Amino acid sequence: MATLKDIAQKAGVTTTTVSRVINNRGYISEQTRAKVFQVMEELNYHPNELARALAKKHNSTIGVIVPHISHPFFANLISNLESSAMKKGYKILLCNSKDKQSKEMEYLEMCISNRVAGIILCSKYVDAKKFSKLNIPIVNLEQEDSFNAISIQCDNYEGGRMAAQHLISCGCKKILHFGGIAGKNMPADQRAQGFTDVCESHKVLSKVVLTDQSAYGTMNYHGVIESVLEENRDADGIFASSDLIAAQVVQVCNAMDIKVPEDVCLVGFDDVYIAQLTTPTITSIHQPIRKMAELSIDCIDKTLNGEVVPSKITLPVTLIKRNSTKID
Amino acid sequence: MATLKDIAQKAGVTTTTVSRVINNRGYISEQTRAKVFQVMEELNYHPNELARALAKKHNSTIGVIVPHISHPFFANLISNLESSAMKKGYKILLCNSKDKQSKEMEYLEMCISNRVAGIILCSKYVDAKKFSKLNIPIVNLEQEDSFNAISIQCDNYEGGRMAAQHLISCGCKKILHFGGIAGKNMPADQRAQGFTDVCESHKVLSKVVLTDQSAYGTMNYHGVIESVLEENRDADGIFASSDLIAAQVVQVCNAMDIKVPEDVCLVGFDDVYIAQLTTPTITSIHQPIRKMAELSIDCIDKTLNGEVVPSKITLPVTLIKRNSTKID
Repeated sequence: MATLKDIAQKAGVTTTTVSRVINNRGYISEQTRAKVFQVMEELNYHPNELARALAKKHNSTIGVIVPHISHPFFANLISNLESSAMKKGYKILLCNSKDKQSKEMEYLEMCISNRVAGIILCSKYVDAKKFSKLNIPIVNLEQEDSFNAISIQCDNYEGGRMAAQHLISCGCKKILHFGGIAGKNMPADQRAQGFTDVCESHKVLSKVVLTDQSAYGTMNYHGVIESVLEENRDADGIFASSDLIAAQVVQVCNAMDIKVPEDVCLVGFDDVYIAQLTTPTITSIHQPIRKMAELSIDCIDKTLNGEVVPSKITLPVTLIKRNSTKID
Repeated sequence: MATLKDIAQKAGVTTTTVSRVINNRGYISEQTRAKVFQVMEELNYHPNELARALAKKHNSTIGVIVPHISHPFFANLISNLESSAMKKGYKILLCNSKDKQSKEMEYLEMCISNRVAGIILCSKYVDAKKFSKLNIPIVNLEQEDSFNAISIQCDNYEGGRMAAQHLISCGCKKILHFGGIAGKNMPADQRAQGFTDVCESHKVLSKVVLTDQSAYGTMNYHGVIESVLEENRDADGIFASSDLIAAQVVQVCNAMDIKVPEDVCLVGFDDVYIAQLTTPTITSIHQPIRKMAELSIDCIDKTLNGEVVPSKITLPVTLIKRNSTKID
């Protein structure tokens, strides 16, 4: 590949001038600038971002560690993170922890060794001590207060409340909630809390069902949904903690000849596009995923520029009504 | 951050020894190795992969350029690429071209400037000349023969044939195909060709409907599906070129009171998980996405190691029968 020197020689300028053109620094006449770019094109020269990154001590890459790339929530989040990153001049290094602690640690190490500009962590483990010493901004989207990171979340508690209130307003008397993963504490567990609080205050029967790790990994909840519905034939409302689970509730209900919404009203969470793909479409609690992504990148960018950023940000959720709760 | 020298000093060894431990080169006693690792841990040292990459002239990152991150096919593909890359010691730099030529070029430039080890291109434009001079292995998953890249595809023509044959075996007499994007040539267009050839040889009526760019971008095909179904009330079979389109066919049919599969049999393409989320579940042509991802990474890895790799690989597809074509 051509070097700065080759460009300088062919363009009849000094290497300093070429460097100024590339880095857009100092005064350079339009004529010289055009000439240098023309020679760069001719010689097929591409500036070496690696060398620049090394000089700056970090590169413009942001490590994104998710537990599940093809889960609709994360696919949507990653897409939005990529857009926001690009707008601010960052690139995304994508890591899939598969919800395993060992992989999460491995990826964190990898990100650090590659001198990423920042890390966005949507995973759930992390040894607090190990990373508190580092000078890399970390945004955490699924955990809070565990170490020196910026936490960005939607208002999970309010989301749970909204779901319960809506189901009660639809006339539900016994509501099931398919919730978080057993044995793990996550901010999303607040959805169950908000849900339970509202049901209790309205004296409506409620039951929280925890799901297991393997269902999360395979994205297959049919087994747990079926056995819970078998045991609770009198349930007339369901709040699922993701649209993915809700879509599978629609399927299981169909197989068991339970009509949605006539027999059972259903509310999901996330408001990802699968909520619109099922028949009936699924009423859902909308997470502001785009805004969460934008703020994540923004917080990293501001931290790198020495600005003070919030340590915790909570974003509002909204209820999106669709056919799974629409009883004419 | 601690340097090699700091580690050497504290561990009481030379910097050469530390370097050997980190790079796993030359003979080092177990005792020394353990001591060096312990000090690295104490001093919070992380080897600088950027510096290593610069020395090697490229880093271990593979640029993945897709037109759409949250589209279920690409979300699945990206997930599989990440797994395969990790197994071979590569990382994924994720780029979303949003199916725009300008963004695709911008990302290609960015990948080159960052000295990626290879590029996996699932986008459709690219100026052939510009990249033929480069010494970076490029795998192309959506285009062929346009320039010096490795093309990996599923057998799109056979997939189209299979879909038509299955629909005809279900008794369909007039079959619609929702196909590729108007005005673009893609290997996926071969699906329409295989479909049409089989319909013609069986003297079954068929009609190919092209979709438009904006539907692809927004993932919303309701409008085109509805108008085509209105015009073709006598159609009794539909072959959709993605499960995403097929899922929306299910919805539109439901809204128009057309029963799937009783009135219209439906076959999708890709076999991504949404085919299992709809009611009825969707019969689909399975693309071996995992294998395509594995081979993509493998071809880049082998090219970098100087091995000869195929310039074109075609993988077989299979028919997965589900309820959208099951008539009892």
